[in-house]
Amino acid sequence: MSLLVVGSIALDSVETPTAVREDVLGGSAVFFSYAASYFSPVRLVGVVGEDWPAEHTKLLADRGIDTSGLQVVRGAETFRWRGKYLPNMNDRETLEVHLNVFGEFDPVLPEAYKRCEFLFLANGSPTLQMKVLDQLPGARLRVADTMDLWIKTQHDELMQLLKRIDGLVMNDSEAKLLTEDENLVRAGHKIRAMGPKFVVIKKGEHGAMFFSEHETYVMPGYPTPDVVDPTGAGDSFAGGMMGYLAERGDFEPKTLKEALAYGTIVASFNVEDFSLDRMRQIEREDLEQRMSDYRRMLSF
Amino acid sequence: MSLLVVGSIALDSVETPTAVREDVLGGSAVFFSYAASYFSPVRLVGVVGEDWPAEHTKLLADRGIDTSGLQVVRGAETFRWRGKYLPNMNDRETLEVHLNVFGEFDPVLPEAYKRCEFLFLANGSPTLQMKVLDQLPGARLRVADTMDLWIKTQHDELMQLLKRIDGLVMNDSEAKLLTEDENLVRAGHKIRAMGPKFVVIKKGEHGAMFFSEHETYVMPGYPTPDVVDPTGAGDSFAGGMMGYLAERGDFEPKTLKEALAYGTIVASFNVEDFSLDRMRQIEREDLEQRMSDYRRMLSF
Repeated sequence: MSLLVVGSIALDSVETPTAVREDVLGGSAVFFSYAASYFSPVRLVGVVGEDWPAEHTKLLADRGIDTSGLQVVRGAETFRWRGKYLPNMNDRETLEVHLNVFGEFDPVLPEAYKRCEFLFLANGSPTLQMKVLDQLPGARLRVADTMDLWIKTQHDELMQLLKRIDGLVMNDSEAKLLTEDENLVRAGHKIRAMGPKFVVIKKGEHGAMFFSEHETYVMPGYPTPDVVDPTGAGDSFAGGMMGYLAERGDFEPKTLKEALAYGTIVASFNVEDFSLDRMRQIEREDLEQRMSDYRRMLSF
Repeated sequence: MSLLVVGSIALDSVETPTAVREDVLGGSAVFFSYAASYFSPVRLVGVVGEDWPAEHTKLLADRGIDTSGLQVVRGAETFRWRGKYLPNMNDRETLEVHLNVFGEFDPVLPEAYKRCEFLFLANGSPTLQMKVLDQLPGARLRVADTMDLWIKTQHDELMQLLKRIDGLVMNDSEAKLLTEDENLVRAGHKIRAMGPKFVVIKKGEHGAMFFSEHETYVMPGYPTPDVVDPTGAGDSFAGGMMGYLAERGDFEPKTLKEALAYGTIVASFNVEDFSLDRMRQIEREDLEQRMSDYRRMLSF
């Protein structure tokens, strides 16, 4: 099944306790689509400025990602983000955000994209996310991410969005903010009651929790000693998850659980280097090896 | 197999965002032994003052816990702790500590205890813990807990202790403190290199990690919506773990992993009410039911 992702495309500057990288390839839709590309064809919708290096588009295209939905705006600059990780490598500070072209982004889907059946709405306002939903009335599975900014500034629009999607993926702190509940089990079910059939709460290094009408479960993070840069972990998690669902072509409870596990595994590789650098070194086979290790870890 | 625990016995005062309890039964050895009693006979060594309510001893004895190692010191008071949980119910502040009789505790094992093969050294200084080890040269499995206070004030003694035990159980923040490493996977293996054959790092609501020469794994916390009071979660985890090992009479890798899962399950009940109140309502059968739910949760 084909998978469509709409979200941010960025040039990230990342500071960790031991290194700094300037203007490296990043953005939610980029991490997502690269991670998903191990499993299924991906179609990308996003916007960049004139400063966008063509080699980045080539890198994505070489993974089989369809970039015909990538808008390049002349005379404008690409979205930039600068962040700094604390020594625990889990908490971070945003130092600078320049929305640039992403601030005016109006997602227009190419005709060929409109038959996509699996849709992921990555980082973007609920208003923007709903514009995409309007163009894809036939989607079989619609999943969105959201973040603190939209919970605070577009609460009503977010509530409308939640009634129109099948699944929501978000961070633990955002789930607490949205529900004003500090217990994640209660928070997960409260969000489900707002509309989506299932909710996935990402807990960073501690893994992810899943909530549906009949199921509540936790998947731990894969324990890696080599955390170099956590940027994009949540997006690569979502990419692995949605990519696997699209590959399988269904979203039955069993498939969803396997999808969360694949998301966990892809994210565990992603954090092992800056930008897409670690993912660029691996193949599906590496994911499968770590996956069987993960399965063994969890069986007793 | 019989299991021996040496540790603190306390009267706790606990403040949560919604309730307060004064002078309720607590202490590391109490939570531990109650949790372990679902699985195996337990022998308790600890000290209390003249203010100790006899009904507490009866409560433990009624669970089959051997309290003949409980010293009652006339004219002195029992160890008291007062703590306050933050709204997230995971972080807490210690408001008051009165060591009282525990400050002078000199553990003397009754003769009948000296044949115990499974030993757990709960909260106490490394010096005190080594005094117990000296009295039990024939123990087959020696596991200890430790905490930030001892890492800071008895570092050398702790290093000696680590060379004399088989397993160490500690919190994530303490593992980071001891190793000066913020990555728990690296921290776990660094601690193992200090002596113990295996290390268990407890992550509160996020579960626990296990490290041995050939294995590294994570077990997530059981997702409960009803967290009322986390006091004793780590001790009841250790109690469930050690109780199961003593029941099985071995500590093979497979048994250890099952033991960590049982520890997780007992702890998940313990946090559902103050003091031992939730554990007092359940039987082994309740643990088994939640355990099969947990197994199902982790299988995919």
